[in-house]
Amino acid sequence: MSFLLKSTRERAEVWKPLFNKALPDLAFHVWPETGAPEDVRFMAAWEPPADLLKRFPNLEVLFSVGAGVDQFDMNTIPEHVTIIRMIEPGLTDGMVDYVLWATLTLHREIPTYLVQQKQHVWKTRHNKIAAQRRVGVMGLGTLGSPVVQALAHAGFDCSGWSRSRHTLANVTCYAGSDELDAFLASSDILVCLLPLTDATRGMLNADLFARLPKGAQIINVARGAHLVTADLLAALDSGQIGAAILDVTDPEPLPADSPLWDHPNVMVTPHVASNSQTETAGCVLLDTVQRYLAGERDFPSKVDRSQGY
Amino acid sequence: MSFLLKSTRERAEVWKPLFNKALPDLAFHVWPETGAPEDVRFMAAWEPPADLLKRFPNLEVLFSVGAGVDQFDMNTIPEHVTIIRMIEPGLTDGMVDYVLWATLTLHREIPTYLVQQKQHVWKTRHNKIAAQRRVGVMGLGTLGSPVVQALAHAGFDCSGWSRSRHTLANVTCYAGSDELDAFLASSDILVCLLPLTDATRGMLNADLFARLPKGAQIINVARGAHLVTADLLAALDSGQIGAAILDVTDPEPLPADSPLWDHPNVMVTPHVASNSQTETAGCVLLDTVQRYLAGERDFPSKVDRSQGY
Repeated sequence: MSFLLKSTRERAEVWKPLFNKALPDLAFHVWPETGAPEDVRFMAAWEPPADLLKRFPNLEVLFSVGAGVDQFDMNTIPEHVTIIRMIEPGLTDGMVDYVLWATLTLHREIPTYLVQQKQHVWKTRHNKIAAQRRVGVMGLGTLGSPVVQALAHAGFDCSGWSRSRHTLANVTCYAGSDELDAFLASSDILVCLLPLTDATRGMLNADLFARLPKGAQIINVARGAHLVTADLLAALDSGQIGAAILDVTDPEPLPADSPLWDHPNVMVTPHVASNSQTETAGCVLLDTVQRYLAGERDFPSKVDRSQGY
Repeated sequence: MSFLLKSTRERAEVWKPLFNKALPDLAFHVWPETGAPEDVRFMAAWEPPADLLKRFPNLEVLFSVGAGVDQFDMNTIPEHVTIIRMIEPGLTDGMVDYVLWATLTLHREIPTYLVQQKQHVWKTRHNKIAAQRRVGVMGLGTLGSPVVQALAHAGFDCSGWSRSRHTLANVTCYAGSDELDAFLASSDILVCLLPLTDATRGMLNADLFARLPKGAQIINVARGAHLVTADLLAALDSGQIGAAILDVTDPEPLPADSPLWDHPNVMVTPHVASNSQTETAGCVLLDTVQRYLAGERDFPSKVDRSQGY
């Protein structure tokens, strides 16, 4: 029985000794070295090989090393393989930090001050207080929920929207397509933390922007394909959208000739909002494998293939 | 008996009706209209007139419309006049927002990503988690204490330093000059929220920078005169200081030819970290006047002239 890791050298160097010590009977292989392919029961990867089933006929569990699994081609993963996403405290904390930073940046009109700095202009603008700023978070899963609660703690007037009904302290929760309009109309700053599925691809488009308050601001920390870039640029030009902070783009890396780079009201960071932390992620992975070996099959991080996340 | 306001039109428009309704017997004058000078018992101003004593011989209380009183020339203010600083929730909340924004900006290496954006470069850097970042706040008064507690809540490894001993949950508190070195040595990000006095003027200088960890980052939200600009520029060039966010400069407005504007590792905002909010500040002012008229003389916001704040 073996565990196969197809990821970075840094993760391999931390995770292999961790697994070897805790589970000495489970061989731990680091791609491209695989050991006997028929022994591979567990695999952790960002992108598994295309011929997964053929090469590893006894694979039982496939772990994503990231929070999302949209990079997996589900057609190449047999139905009987359990798919598990990475949910670990380092990943959550990083996302909370980043979205708090991005929300404060837009709340305090920092893009305008950066433009003024380039022009050597000292000109004050009136500060709203956080309670006067309505922030809406789309997606209330393992990342969206702690994010919106941190924003509420920081004093923002917060609401959340998701497919299914949630209840969160100090957050107005909206659910489903029927309540989307009311949610959008009350979001001065909109944060996208949705999973990428067929239902959410391209959701941040001209039609959605038109339902936000005039001058609303956008933060996308989910996947680049949630956003229709041409629609965002048009909405920025018309003033319907005031500014955007994008940590994800489509494609990635963002091509050097993209108009997003030079737009004065767009800030781009290179998909760094949150990365799993090697140490804490290794502990979560090991814990999940140990539970699986002990017979547990129901994990909160298990992917529902019918939902795609 | 009268109250004289020497401030902005916006404040006058909100505060005059507030005072007139609550205290109909107290005449409320808006500078340059003063009424009978000998009737002026209370005055609120950012900068009072130089001939204060001569013009208003019966002045009892002088309010600063800001948190600081360093803009007052104490020599022109008679000893018997009570001086009161502005401490109000809007001012505190704004400062907490801003310092949280600035700390997250430095923690997440946003200045580097802004330079990359200008160059159309998509290059990730490894994220530290907040618990691995040591933030030190100098000044633990009515602004510094809530600021350092908000930073601790956000997960940073926090310490504070002040002249007198403080005790704050989840914050390592240092006091006095004997403990300054230990405080500085443990501050990856240093936040200045000191009052400006003869003892603190020019305190952010080459000597202090040398006692910080190599590459430490600076946030100045107190007064421009706390910082020796030439020393900061030299420390940025040597790498001893990694980056700085300055909301205050000396002088203000920052002259158009200052080298701070174009430094890639400096962000400048035009003294907007925190401004008193007209509504909440008016309520605090009114409440203080009412208490004074009722005989109260001991206010937490009363300035100790021997300390200068």
